[in-house]
Amino acid sequence: MTFQTLELQLQGHSYPIHIGSGVLSNTVLFQRALKGQRRVAIVTNETVAPYYLDTLVKTLGGCECTPTAIVLPDGEKYKNWETLNLIFDGLLKQACDRKTPIIALGGGVIGDMAGFAAATYQRGVPFIQVPTTLLSQVDSSVGGKTAINHPLGKNMVGAFYQPDAVIADTDTLRTLPDRELAAGLAEVVKYGALGNLPFFEWIEANIDLLVARDPDALQKAILQSCKDKASIVEQDEKEVGIRAWLNLGHTFGHAIESGLGYGAWLHGEAVAAGMIMAATVSQLMGLIPEADVQRLKQLLVRCGLPVVGPKLGAARYIELMSLDKKVESGKIRFVLLEQLGRAVIRSDVPNVLLTQAIEMCCE
Amino acid sequence: MTFQTLELQLQGHSYPIHIGSGVLSNTVLFQRALKGQRRVAIVTNETVAPYYLDTLVKTLGGCECTPTAIVLPDGEKYKNWETLNLIFDGLLKQACDRKTPIIALGGGVIGDMAGFAAATYQRGVPFIQVPTTLLSQVDSSVGGKTAINHPLGKNMVGAFYQPDAVIADTDTLRTLPDRELAAGLAEVVKYGALGNLPFFEWIEANIDLLVARDPDALQKAILQSCKDKASIVEQDEKEVGIRAWLNLGHTFGHAIESGLGYGAWLHGEAVAAGMIMAATVSQLMGLIPEADVQRLKQLLVRCGLPVVGPKLGAARYIELMSLDKKVESGKIRFVLLEQLGRAVIRSDVPNVLLTQAIEMCCE
Repeated sequence: MTFQTLELQLQGHSYPIHIGSGVLSNTVLFQRALKGQRRVAIVTNETVAPYYLDTLVKTLGGCECTPTAIVLPDGEKYKNWETLNLIFDGLLKQACDRKTPIIALGGGVIGDMAGFAAATYQRGVPFIQVPTTLLSQVDSSVGGKTAINHPLGKNMVGAFYQPDAVIADTDTLRTLPDRELAAGLAEVVKYGALGNLPFFEWIEANIDLLVARDPDALQKAILQSCKDKASIVEQDEKEVGIRAWLNLGHTFGHAIESGLGYGAWLHGEAVAAGMIMAATVSQLMGLIPEADVQRLKQLLVRCGLPVVGPKLGAARYIELMSLDKKVESGKIRFVLLEQLGRAVIRSDVPNVLLTQAIEMCCE
Repeated sequence: MTFQTLELQLQGHSYPIHIGSGVLSNTVLFQRALKGQRRVAIVTNETVAPYYLDTLVKTLGGCECTPTAIVLPDGEKYKNWETLNLIFDGLLKQACDRKTPIIALGGGVIGDMAGFAAATYQRGVPFIQVPTTLLSQVDSSVGGKTAINHPLGKNMVGAFYQPDAVIADTDTLRTLPDRELAAGLAEVVKYGALGNLPFFEWIEANIDLLVARDPDALQKAILQSCKDKASIVEQDEKEVGIRAWLNLGHTFGHAIESGLGYGAWLHGEAVAAGMIMAATVSQLMGLIPEADVQRLKQLLVRCGLPVVGPKLGAARYIELMSLDKKVESGKIRFVLLEQLGRAVIRSDVPNVLLTQAIEMCCE
């Protein structure tokens, strides 16, 4: 049971991120996160519960804490009002009060929804993230973004709400389907591409180990991803500036997800194809050479990820992107690459060039 | 067009509260609150829109700002998910982005819902309160509490989210129904009872002027109420301590509202009867003499308010109150009076005494 701990330091609120093998059974870590509360609500889903709910309940028992579980259906298509209300119904029926912590046990969808429930139940209750997918361990559990989807746009309703702790057990990745592992690797590659060329090179050198789920390689990738994310979030918690870099590939990716209907592609898959679109726009804008687009593409292919977008039509892509949260005064703000390993935000992409890039990147 | 301005000073966020005649037409005040934004979404209801929407739109036109209006049905029973979603639908259809301010034009229900929409649309957009009822001008528009109701409890889902400005036009009180004016006076009396005996005495001396809607008396009452509230919120924004005093009468009042079905009684009416219950508990606990209960009751009667609760049965009251947000570890925390003009929080009220007080106060 070895683990490493990062501390995310925000103004007025800091919290630990524990990463390692076996932390799901580490009573001391949970005890510290629970701050003496004797009751807790676990929000999880039908896929994760059979694997890890018993282990977590046992660990909480060791903290003299009585948990109740709220088990939701699994999938991005359930990240909506109706499912969120199931959480509130469960909390109220159990008479959870505003000191009762909520624990999110699952992937990005569970973390986003349980986090938004924690942000808004009785105007805010304590929150602990226990991410069980690679994507949620490297990205969505860290940084305090919570949300649900709206039929007209992804993550359109949500809150910035930081957890009290993130406890990421790398052992849970053993049961992760290959497709989900690849989706998580998309976000790992993203950190390299947007701001850390040495990490990008390390991923290139270790991609076979990562795909083979070598525990040491995975732990190193998760730790470095969380470090990179923490450093950016510490500079810009509410995304008024540099934090937008973390959305590399996401403006195109959200268009894919909402254009195809939530759940058709995994979030990480959409981000992978979206990163290639963003890189292609960067190339057409004269920022990076075509060789860098190819290099990024090769790495994503080795992760087992799609690098060609679905054929929605350029006009539909642009329509969907014009509802993105990064739109300001009618201008879409794109996260592009000014070089491999360094992102830049541009709102001056001509529509004709955008159309060309989308057509180049879609089958 | 005379007005007075208070400044609510919170850590990291301060905002002005402008109170006076004609401020709804004051382009300068709105221009300052809009911070250069050229688009804005107005959330209002079917009752308020015919009176004041045109005036507000004209004022915003003077700020070179193009507003879109989202007009909701009127009433506490619409303070729910379904109606909140109408706001999100409207914002998304108009492609409002995360810099587009939301203006709440209406009473407490509109302010609470528009505020919660502002707190959560795209994880937070600018927000301006334009309260048009006495209750919202003296209470709900100030302090940043936003929420919607859940069938199992009032204001159970919400956020602390401060507005950028409160612009309260006392002229709008001219069109307020008598019953709503009285409901607002309940909260005015509350400030006197919980922490300001001289203000309580001033209300006693001026109650006939207030009920007759004397503009000077109303402006003075609104200003003093906002001052008292601002001072408490500045000490305890997130209600970990003294802010709970502001809930004098509300634990009982919320039980009345949710027990009868939202909208049967106005919030202020339920708070009035709730304050008498809280005062009666205080008397039975030996904190205040019966004469103080009578004095409070007389003043509320002169406001035109109910001072006797509906006969739900003591057991049902206690059941409903056990879901209150001030419950911690199964104990209901009551805001009582340790003297007239000074609240105190107690979680040691014996059930038998509570039952007795409820029976004494219900018809």
